Amino acid sequence: MTPAMADDTQKPETADYVLTHTMLRIKDPARSLPFYTEVLGMRLVTRLDFDEARFSLYFLQAGGHADRADGSLAQTFSRAGLLELTHNWGSEGDDTAMHSGNEAPKGYGHICIAVPDIAAACARFDRLGVPFRKRLGEGGMKEIAFIEDPDGYWIEIVQPDLMDALLAGHHTKT
Amino acid sequence: MTPAMADDTQKPETADYVLTHTMLRIKDPARSLPFYTEVLGMRLVTRLDFDEARFSLYFLQAGGHADRADGSLAQTFSRAGLLELTHNWGSEGDDTAMHSGNEAPKGYGHICIAVPDIAAACARFDRLGVPFRKRLGEGGMKEIAFIEDPDGYWIEIVQPDLMDALLAGHHTKT
Repeated sequence: MTPAMADDTQKPETADYVLTHTMLRIKDPARSLPFYTEVLGMRLVTRLDFDEARFSLYFLQAGGHADRADGSLAQTFSRAGLLELTHNWGSEGDDTAMHSGNEAPKGYGHICIAVPDIAAACARFDRLGVPFRKRLGEGGMKEIAFIEDPDGYWIEIVQPDLMDALLAGHHTKT
Repeated sequence: MTPAMADDTQKPETADYVLTHTMLRIKDPARSLPFYTEVLGMRLVTRLDFDEARFSLYFLQAGGHADRADGSLAQTFSRAGLLELTHNWGSEGDDTAMHSGNEAPKGYGHICIAVPDIAAACARFDRLGVPFRKRLGEGGMKEIAFIEDPDGYWIEIVQPDLMDALLAGHHTKT
């Protein structure tokens, strides 16, 4: 047990902090929005267009059971677990690639989507033509998959109820 | 209104998908864990050490009101809005920097923490010696701040109830 894990008492200063979103830059919303909304089933809860600065923000939430947005930015900026996609206008016209974080120099790795049935999810991704970085059955952890979004960002796909058995032989949990 | 925003009916195939975590590589848990747990008040819910492959994973959750973990990985991999820090053993000994995503070639941008009182939060970060990318009062959006984590990743700090007024003059919401 690490000191941090033993810390049952949160400081009052940080007790209400919320991890609200993760921001990724995208080249082209015309390809990224269908990917996140149709392939991954996220809901576009807020879109903001900044005309002067020439960029747009798209806030997406996973899962069909999310509360409907009330339209306020107070809500968009307080909800846990959103994805923010930033589109700098005109970037769809240049041919430089986004840095996925997974080539040197590395940094950011991926987002992870939990699905109730990973075999069904991966079969569907295949039918939809989604590129895989790692398919089910490949590598050391056969029941985890990685797909790529239209900019090449990695997305881990897991089925939570498989994870205890899957990782049991691989690690020490402290 | 975009087609995606009009889509009130989620597909059954993706209705239970959850955006569970965002993964960032870190150089040294001895500096990153105190930052995320003490400065930002996150709780370390799961630590996994992979002895053979020589890496560790740290799953952190923001907010003092989070349910306590039951110790299962099924739970760790199904909760929304976690942060996963990946430490490849030995990386604390090399002097290459992580790619923050915010220098060319760009990609990943930041995570965002919502706080109830941003002035108090930023004053506390200052007292704790946290580096700022952008302080309150600077730039076009004066009531948003950006701090840096120990690897140089950007962290946006917002106070949700200020966001509607703050962004009102800057964008078109569609």
